[in-house]
Amino acid sequence: MRPPPFCVRSALDASNRGAVQSAPSRAYTTHRPKPRLSALTRHAWARPRNPLHPPTPSPFGKRFNSSTPPPKESSTVIARCLTAAKWTGFLSAGFVASIAFGTFVLFVHDAFTYSDQHIDGVPVNPLALHPERGGPKNLPIVEVLLRDEEDPEFRELATKPRLVIVGGGWGAMGVIEKLKPGDYHVTVVSAETYTTFTPLLPSAAVGTVQARSLMEPIRKIMARLKGHFVQGKAVDMVFGERLLEVETADGGHIYVPYDKLVIAVGSVSSTHGVPGLEHSFQLKTISDALAIRRRILENFEIASLPTTTPEDRKRLLSFVVCGGGPTGVEAAAEIYDLCQEDIMQYYPKLCREEVSIHLIQSREHILNTYSEAISKYAEEKFKRDEIDLITNARVSLIDSDKVIYSIKNPETGEHEQRTIPTNFILWSTGIAMNPFTKRVTGLLPNQFHKKAIETDAHLRVKGLKEDGVYAIGDCATIETSIVSHFMDLVDVADKDKNGKIDFEEWEVMVQEIRKRIPMADAHLTKIRELFEQYDSDADNSLNLNELVSLLEGLGKKITSLPATAQVASQQGKYIGKKLHKLALAREERGGNISTHQSTPTLPDSPSQIPRITDEEISKPFSYLHLGSLAYIGNAAVFDLGKFQLMGGLAAMYAWRSVYWNEQVSSRTRAMLMIDWIVRGVWGRDLSKL
Amino acid sequence: MRPPPFCVRSALDASNRGAVQSAPSRAYTTHRPKPRLSALTRHAWARPRNPLHPPTPSPFGKRFNSSTPPPKESSTVIARCLTAAKWTGFLSAGFVASIAFGTFVLFVHDAFTYSDQHIDGVPVNPLALHPERGGPKNLPIVEVLLRDEEDPEFRELATKPRLVIVGGGWGAMGVIEKLKPGDYHVTVVSAETYTTFTPLLPSAAVGTVQARSLMEPIRKIMARLKGHFVQGKAVDMVFGERLLEVETADGGHIYVPYDKLVIAVGSVSSTHGVPGLEHSFQLKTISDALAIRRRILENFEIASLPTTTPEDRKRLLSFVVCGGGPTGVEAAAEIYDLCQEDIMQYYPKLCREEVSIHLIQSREHILNTYSEAISKYAEEKFKRDEIDLITNARVSLIDSDKVIYSIKNPETGEHEQRTIPTNFILWSTGIAMNPFTKRVTGLLPNQFHKKAIETDAHLRVKGLKEDGVYAIGDCATIETSIVSHFMDLVDVADKDKNGKIDFEEWEVMVQEIRKRIPMADAHLTKIRELFEQYDSDADNSLNLNELVSLLEGLGKKITSLPATAQVASQQGKYIGKKLHKLALAREERGGNISTHQSTPTLPDSPSQIPRITDEEISKPFSYLHLGSLAYIGNAAVFDLGKFQLMGGLAAMYAWRSVYWNEQVSSRTRAMLMIDWIVRGVWGRDLSKL
Repeated sequence: MRPPPFCVRSALDASNRGAVQSAPSRAYTTHRPKPRLSALTRHAWARPRNPLHPPTPSPFGKRFNSSTPPPKESSTVIARCLTAAKWTGFLSAGFVASIAFGTFVLFVHDAFTYSDQHIDGVPVNPLALHPERGGPKNLPIVEVLLRDEEDPEFRELATKPRLVIVGGGWGAMGVIEKLKPGDYHVTVVSAETYTTFTPLLPSAAVGTVQARSLMEPIRKIMARLKGHFVQGKAVDMVFGERLLEVETADGGHIYVPYDKLVIAVGSVSSTHGVPGLEHSFQLKTISDALAIRRRILENFEIASLPTTTPEDRKRLLSFVVCGGGPTGVEAAAEIYDLCQEDIMQYYPKLCREEVSIHLIQSREHILNTYSEAISKYAEEKFKRDEIDLITNARVSLIDSDKVIYSIKNPETGEHEQRTIPTNFILWSTGIAMNPFTKRVTGLLPNQFHKKAIETDAHLRVKGLKEDGVYAIGDCATIETSIVSHFMDLVDVADKDKNGKIDFEEWEVMVQEIRKRIPMADAHLTKIRELFEQYDSDADNSLNLNELVSLLEGLGKKITSLPATAQVASQQGKYIGKKLHKLALAREERGGNISTHQSTPTLPDSPSQIPRITDEEISKPFSYLHLGSLAYIGNAAVFDLGKFQLMGGLAAMYAWRSVYWNEQVSSRTRAMLMIDWIVRGVWGRDLSKL
Repeated sequence: MRPPPFCVRSALDASNRGAVQSAPSRAYTTHRPKPRLSALTRHAWARPRNPLHPPTPSPFGKRFNSSTPPPKESSTVIARCLTAAKWTGFLSAGFVASIAFGTFVLFVHDAFTYSDQHIDGVPVNPLALHPERGGPKNLPIVEVLLRDEEDPEFRELATKPRLVIVGGGWGAMGVIEKLKPGDYHVTVVSAETYTTFTPLLPSAAVGTVQARSLMEPIRKIMARLKGHFVQGKAVDMVFGERLLEVETADGGHIYVPYDKLVIAVGSVSSTHGVPGLEHSFQLKTISDALAIRRRILENFEIASLPTTTPEDRKRLLSFVVCGGGPTGVEAAAEIYDLCQEDIMQYYPKLCREEVSIHLIQSREHILNTYSEAISKYAEEKFKRDEIDLITNARVSLIDSDKVIYSIKNPETGEHEQRTIPTNFILWSTGIAMNPFTKRVTGLLPNQFHKKAIETDAHLRVKGLKEDGVYAIGDCATIETSIVSHFMDLVDVADKDKNGKIDFEEWEVMVQEIRKRIPMADAHLTKIRELFEQYDSDADNSLNLNELVSLLEGLGKKITSLPATAQVASQQGKYIGKKLHKLALAREERGGNISTHQSTPTLPDSPSQIPRITDEEISKPFSYLHLGSLAYIGNAAVFDLGKFQLMGGLAAMYAWRSVYWNEQVSSRTRAMLMIDWIVRGVWGRDLSKL
C-alpha cells in the first residue's frame, strides 16, 4: 500500500533539496497546503512544470516530487473550495442516496403490509361461545376464550396454568415484560384497551406531546405471549373458588378463573374530604389529559371574546393546581410553557398578560419528597416565572368558579380563608383505594391498611389461605409490621427454647427479619446498639416483652414504598420473573397445567401436584431506587439520592431522554421523538377538540 | 485538467502498442476493469512492474501507461470490492453526517423555541372590554376586538373594511389563502377552532391517519393576515345594519359587524325523512370520525368476549354504510382494511370471520357521479372483498340495533322490506341546509332553492340590496335560471328595440348570457341550431314568447355544481382574489376604510366613497373540474373527465400524494406522511379512547 502523502513528501524533500532550492520553491514551502488535501487537487500540482526536465522516477509511484510547481495563492483557495465542494458533494450524495434507499425500503415494506387474504372456519370451542354458569352469583365462568383453539400454539397454551393480570398500567406491563411465551395462559383484564405512559401526562395535557404517543394497545403488547385481553373492570373476588368477577365492556358480569392472579389496578385520587372535587380535574388517565387540554383552550377562547368581562377573563385565565408533588409541579410548568410559547403567539396578548398560575401545597415546600436543594431550585424557577406558590395551605372547598383554601397568616398566626376565582382546578394530592381494592381488603382478614392492599415481602396478598395471588403497584403496600411475624421469629431464633433471646440468637433473628422484611434492612445496621437499647434490665438477653417493643419500634421506622411508576414497574418485573421461574419449576415436576381445565383428558386433581412455594424459588422483593426527576418548565431536576442535578434546557433534554428510554414500544418511542420535533418546528397543537 | 482515464488509456495504447504486444498485455485487455474504477485502485496498477525498464514519461502526469501490469483476476475483484466499500463508506458517512447535522440544527432550533419573556401593559381599547349594545336585539356589538390596539400593525388594520368569514372549512380557507395582509380587518367566525381536511376523514375514522393530522388551528392560519378569530356559531343576520348574530363559545349572543361577509358554513347531512337517524353516525367532522373509531373498536372488544352470543357477535360486527358516494365507499373500504390488516392480527380470528360490511345505495351503481368504468371497477373490487353491495335500495328505518331497507325483488317485482341487524350505521347521503342557512334564505326574497343559499354568478347572495355579501361552498348554489335575467338580456341584445331578437341580436345575447351565467357556456355551443329550434314561426327572429321558452329550456339544462371540497375551495379562492382586488381598487380611490368605525377621527360618511361593483373588477365565477378520486381499499380510482385511472397499490399511493399536496399547512403534510409510515411499520392505532 501507498504510504501517507506527508511521508512521501518528506523523503522527496530530502533527496531533491539541492536541485529545487529556489525562490518559487520557498514560496511553495510557505504556501503548501495541508497534507490532507485530496487526490484531485494533488494531481493538479503533479503536472511537471518543464517537460524538458523530466522528474526523477520515485519508487512511490511518483505522485509527489520537488519539481512540482508552487501553486499560486488563488489556486490553493480554489483547490480548497474544490475539496470542500467535493466533500459536500459526497455528503449530499450520501444523504440523498440514503434517503432514496430508505424511501424505497419503506415503500417496498409498506406495499407488503396490505393484505386481502380471506379466512374461513376458525375453530372455536363451543364453551367459548356459550360459557357455563357457576360461582356464588351464578355468572358465566369464562373457562375457555375465543382464541383458545385458534391455532396449535393457542391450543397448547390453553392447557397451561391461567395467569390473570388485573390492570394495564406499569405493574401489569412489568409482569408481561418478564414472562416468557409458553409460561402461562395469560389474560389481562383492564378497563382501558391500552397502557399509558403516565409520567408524560402533564405534557399531553397541554399538547406538547400527543396523547396517542403515550398509548400502546394492550392487545399488541400481549401478542408476544399469545395472551388474551378482556376489556372490563374487576369488581369482586371469589377467593375460595379462584374466580375474579369482572364487569365487561358491555355491562355484563362474568367470572374469570385463575390459577395465578396479579392485582395491579392502581389507585384513585385521595379526596382528603374536600367538598366539590367534581369541579376539579385529575391527571391519572389519557381522558383526564384530554379533558384538561379542552378546558384550557376553551378558557383561552372565551377569554378572547370582547364580551367577556375583565373579571371573568381573570377568572378564566387563572389556573389552580392543588398538590406540589411531581405531577402538580409538572402540570403547572407545562401550562406556563403553553402560555409562553404558543398562547403568546396566537391569542390576544392581553390573555397572556392576565394568566395566573397558582400552586397550592399543604407542606412547606413543593417537591417535598426530593432533596432540599431541588425544592429550592424549583421554587426559585417558579418565582421567576411568576407562578404563585401557596405553601402550608390546605384546600377547604372547591366550586365551579373558585377554590377556597386556609392558610396561616404570618402576622396574626391565625388561619385565614382565602379564595381564588378560577375555572380550572387540577387535583393531584395523594392516592386512595378504588372500589375493587376496597372490596378485596374487605373480604380478607389481616388487611388493616387504609390506602392499599397489604402484601408480604413476596408481594402475596396477606390474609389468604391460597397462594398465587399478588398485588403490586399503587393498589398495594408491603407490610412494615415486624411484630406480626413475632412467633415465627422466636421459633427460628430461640435455639435453646428458654423464652429469651440472647445476643447470638438476636443475630439469627436479624437474619430472619432481613429475609422476611427486606425493607427493615436499612434500620438493622447497628444491631448491638438496638439490642442494648431494648434490653432494659441489662441481663444481656431480651425477654418476650422487650422483644415485642423492639420489633414494634423497628416496624415503625420502616416507611412504605412511594406510589410511583418506578415501584410498580419493579414490582411487576419481580412478579414476572418469579412467575416464569414457577412455570419452569412446575414444568420440571410435570405439573404445569391449569387447575381450571375444561378439557376432560387432563387430570382432575391438581392438588396431587407438588406445591412450589415462592420462598423456594425467589427472594423477597427489594426495591432499588433509581432516582426521581421532574420537569419544571424548560428546566428539569434529578434527585439521584447521593447527588442531584438541576438545570435548564440541557437538563430538560436529559429528562426527555430518560422518559424516551423507558417507552413500552418502538412506536411510542418514535412518536414521542416526532412530537418533540413537531413542537419545536410548528409549536403545540392548539386545536380544541 | 486531466482528461478522463479512458481517453488517456487509448492514446497510450496507440503509441506503445509495439512494445507491449505480449500475452500479459492481452490478458490486461481482456480483464481490464471498466474505466470508471476509482483513483485508489488505479494507483495500485500504476506501480512499474520492472524498475529496469522505466516507463516513457507522458504529458498527462504519467498515471497510465502501457507498462502497467495486467491486474490479476483476484486483484480486480478486490479492487471492485474496495471501490464498493469506499462508495458505501462515502454514502454512509454522508448519511451519518447529514443526520448528525440535521439533529444538530434541530436541537439548536429547538433550543431557541423556549421563551420566558414577560409582557406587561398590553394596550386595549376600552370598547374591546365593554362593547356597546345595539341592533334589533340590543346585543353587544363587537366593533373593536381585543387585539385591535395590540401593536401598530393591528392598529393600522383596525381602520380597514371589516371582512367577516363565517365557517372554517374549504371555502373559508380558500378566501384566506388568496387575501393579502393589510387588505381587510379579517375575522373568522367558526364553531370549531380548527379547519379539517375532510377528504381523509374516512381514514381517520379507522386510525389509518391520526385525527390531529387533519386539523390545523384557524388562529395559526390567520396569523399571516393578522386576522381575528371568534369561536361561535352564526345564528342570525341583520342585513340592513350589516350585523351578524353569533352565539359564542360561552353561550352568549353578540353582533359581529361587517363590511364584507362571506358565508361558508357548509351543510348538514340530508335526512331524506328517514326515522331513527339519531342512531347513526355521520362523517362530516373530526368528532364524527373519532366517534366512529370508538364504536368500531368497542364492537370488536365486546365481540371478543366469550359471553357475547354468536347472534350478538354477528350484529356487533356488521357494519352498514348508507350512501354509495365517495365518502360512503371510502368508509366501507377503510373498515375493510382495518379488519384485514389489524383486527386479523390482534383480535380473535373468529371476529374477523364474522365481520360483514354492507353498503346500501339508492341508485343502480356506487360512485354513480363517476364514469361507468370506475363504478364497475369499484364494484368488482368490493365483490372480491366480500363487501355486500345493496343497490337500488332505500333505507326506510334506522334503529339502535338494526337498519331496515326496501328493495325490489327481481323475481316478483315487488318492493320488499329487509333488515340487517347491526350496531354501526354510517349515514352519508347528500346534504341539507343547517339552521343558519335556513334562516338566511328565510330572511331574503328570491331564495327558492331547498338545499342552499342561491347566489348570482359573482357568488353574491341573491335578494339583497346591499353588496359585499357572498355565499360559497356546500351552503350555496349558483342560480341556474337564465329567464330571471330576461329583461336585462333583451335590453342589451335588442339593438333595434323592435321587441324581436334576430340572429345577430341573438349572438349578442349569447355573449351576455355567457358573461352572466358562465355555467350555461357548455350548452351554448350550437347557437344557430338553438335559435332555429325555438324559432317556431321560422321568421328568422325570436319573439319574446319564443325567447322565454328558449331561455327556460336552456336554464333547465344547466346542472348545479356538486357539493364538493373542490368547488368550495375554488369558490373561496375566487372570492379571496376578488376581495383583494376590491381592496386595491378602494385603496386607489382613497376609500379603503370600514363603515363600522368606532374611531372618531375617521370620516363618518362612507357612502360618499365611490362604490366599486364586482363586475368592474372581476369575471363571474367559473368552475374548472380537475377530476374526482376515491379510495376503494388498497386501490384507488381517478375520474379525470376525458380519461380514467384505476388500479391497486400504485393508484393508492397516487391518491395519497394528491391529498398530500392539498394540505393546508406543512405541519399536517409532515404528520400525514408520518402517519402513513407509522401504519406501514406498526399498523393502525387500536387504542379505544
